Amino acid sequence: MFDEFFRKQTIPGKTKIAMLIMDGLGGLPPTPDGKTELEAAFTPNLDALAEKSALGLSIPLGPGIAVGSGPGHLALFGYDPLNCEIGRGPLEALGVDFDLYPDDVAARGNFCTMDDKGILTDRRAGRLPTDESKKLIEKLREIKIEGVDIFLVPVKEHRFAFIMRGVGLESSLTETDPLITGMSPLIIKSLNEGSSRTASIVNQFVEQAQIILAGKSPANMILLRGFAKLPLVPTFSEMYKLKAACIAVNGMYRGVSRLAGMDILDVDGITLADEFTTLEKNWPDYDFFYLHFKKTDTCGENGDFDGKVHAIEEFDTQLPRVLALNPDVVIVTGDHSSPAILKAHSWHPVPLLIYSKYCRTDAVPEFGEGVCAKGSLGHLPAKHIMAIALANAGRVAKYGA
Amino acid sequence: MFDEFFRKQTIPGKTKIAMLIMDGLGGLPPTPDGKTELEAAFTPNLDALAEKSALGLSIPLGPGIAVGSGPGHLALFGYDPLNCEIGRGPLEALGVDFDLYPDDVAARGNFCTMDDKGILTDRRAGRLPTDESKKLIEKLREIKIEGVDIFLVPVKEHRFAFIMRGVGLESSLTETDPLITGMSPLIIKSLNEGSSRTASIVNQFVEQAQIILAGKSPANMILLRGFAKLPLVPTFSEMYKLKAACIAVNGMYRGVSRLAGMDILDVDGITLADEFTTLEKNWPDYDFFYLHFKKTDTCGENGDFDGKVHAIEEFDTQLPRVLALNPDVVIVTGDHSSPAILKAHSWHPVPLLIYSKYCRTDAVPEFGEGVCAKGSLGHLPAKHIMAIALANAGRVAKYGA
Repeated sequence: MFDEFFRKQTIPGKTKIAMLIMDGLGGLPPTPDGKTELEAAFTPNLDALAEKSALGLSIPLGPGIAVGSGPGHLALFGYDPLNCEIGRGPLEALGVDFDLYPDDVAARGNFCTMDDKGILTDRRAGRLPTDESKKLIEKLREIKIEGVDIFLVPVKEHRFAFIMRGVGLESSLTETDPLITGMSPLIIKSLNEGSSRTASIVNQFVEQAQIILAGKSPANMILLRGFAKLPLVPTFSEMYKLKAACIAVNGMYRGVSRLAGMDILDVDGITLADEFTTLEKNWPDYDFFYLHFKKTDTCGENGDFDGKVHAIEEFDTQLPRVLALNPDVVIVTGDHSSPAILKAHSWHPVPLLIYSKYCRTDAVPEFGEGVCAKGSLGHLPAKHIMAIALANAGRVAKYGA
Repeated sequence: MFDEFFRKQTIPGKTKIAMLIMDGLGGLPPTPDGKTELEAAFTPNLDALAEKSALGLSIPLGPGIAVGSGPGHLALFGYDPLNCEIGRGPLEALGVDFDLYPDDVAARGNFCTMDDKGILTDRRAGRLPTDESKKLIEKLREIKIEGVDIFLVPVKEHRFAFIMRGVGLESSLTETDPLITGMSPLIIKSLNEGSSRTASIVNQFVEQAQIILAGKSPANMILLRGFAKLPLVPTFSEMYKLKAACIAVNGMYRGVSRLAGMDILDVDGITLADEFTTLEKNWPDYDFFYLHFKKTDTCGENGDFDGKVHAIEEFDTQLPRVLALNPDVVIVTGDHSSPAILKAHSWHPVPLLIYSKYCRTDAVPEFGEGVCAKGSLGHLPAKHIMAIALANAGRVAKYGA
């Protein structure tokens, strides 16, 4: 419904929106009376911006639900993650930071063990150590099939991501994994006419893989399942009339941004400062910039409270660079919470700041979970952030007379 | 939708959740500048727990809607009350703690008075005293109809619950109660083909009841209305993977809990202290405990402000007993508001407290309507409380990668 609404109501403009995402920003205090990572960080620039901004908490998907970065970003971009579910194959590819394209067909792969009659005896090849898995994947990369590029990326232990890129690939395919031992791996079949060539490609690949792995123990075969493309969603250009750019170092975020029709900008380097340099260079050319900062989440997931504090402080030192460009709207938030004390993504709502000249400020010179919980944006579903940003950018027409 | 989501996303665990419900907890100050019942009560234990908890207001069904305890509890248990409406008959049966089965057809019954022409002169038989009603019900229990078991349970004064159990019963029936005096009781008609046998059973029963009651005064006839089966809802075990127990003295609450698939625990006594003793005894055996305290609502509905204050203080003195069991998550709230000055259920959102080690506290050492209105849980639909409790208990898997 909202997609359709915005398609009709958004209007072109010359205003610029910067969405700055600190991955896994939300946190928890290490002691009940303590401060969260964001509250503990020294952030004079964020605090000054907060004073001119509207504050609130962003709810990525729903109460009590911890999301992965995929659905978390889909929501930030204004999509309903439950209406554009990412299939198992693309999920595996995004999960290892593979830079997935909308027409790629991805599957979940794993090494397995067959007996000499070709019957599966272990669907996980004894949970093959990751290092051995990597060596086998090197060998499988030698397989070439005409008309298609095949990418293999190690995941963990026996698992890997399998991606096909080429013209005319389709993903309506059965799987090779019979899901039980005592049977042979299955031949891939196409579930519609358009997929028959893709089925043939996969079967060729599996045949060659079997030859390469013959005699290896315990991993003498592979299984592939969960073939899918990324879901098809309307682009930023279609929905919002925005020319949008993504500035991210990690493949996962580039993949989701490409899905949304953003241009993926090259970053010369891997630091946040490098990302801001890319932002400055490309500022005249886009209406919307999504800039992604990974370190906050990495530290959160590693249980590194101080590291996350420092990462937030690093972000704070860069913030003036975007403000100097005089953006019309600035959003600062995260795709989900990753409290260091939980070492994981969590369900907690995420601090949210929206700045514009017309944002009706909270006038609170601080950015943190506590003040955001009382902020004037309330507890806002993440998928509504884009609407508020567009409005603040003067890019939504009045509804009705 | 959310039912389906939780079926997929919840994971088993060893954590324990205690949901403590003070019926009709929310209140109003007797004077505009005064305190509500909860704010006026001396509650050192609740206040100390509040300081370590996240606070908010629970919205039972929707803005401006006062709910009964049935829908109020369905929402607390995570169901959408509008999608699982409990018919009037089952509600009456649940209200007297009748162990209703999913295929039972229940109706609300009452004794009435007819004149010698069979015209209703009093639809309530002079509000027949409960004791006399019980004696008449004993006589009506002698009625036997082939192929069906019929249960009659006294409720209060002229009212009783009427339950049919057997194969192939359906509840699409008209009612015998014309709702006004000056008319005769109506013959039951089936509203679809499947219900015609059930209609015939009810008409046979009413005929025989009329013979048994002939000559009695004032109760010489019965009226039946509100035929329905229980709504079918997924259980706590199915939805949340929780082994759940109900601790409640009053039948209504036991009935709604049974609907949710909870075990109904015996309480040796009728006081709140007795309920907490049951909680302590059964603590090792369940993942989830729902404990219900009626007195707050009774006082509210009676307009007894001080009585409600004392009831809340009674709850406060018992609270340490559950905390001593070291629960992972504690929820304290009500199923609706019952302000003493209104002498009725009201639409006001209900104070809500959720404690866990990971709840992101409000750090406010107070539990009351005022502080809860500013709490970090926001104004939360009651049906989302279970999601947040499950998340805090580490029982919800991450969605997506």
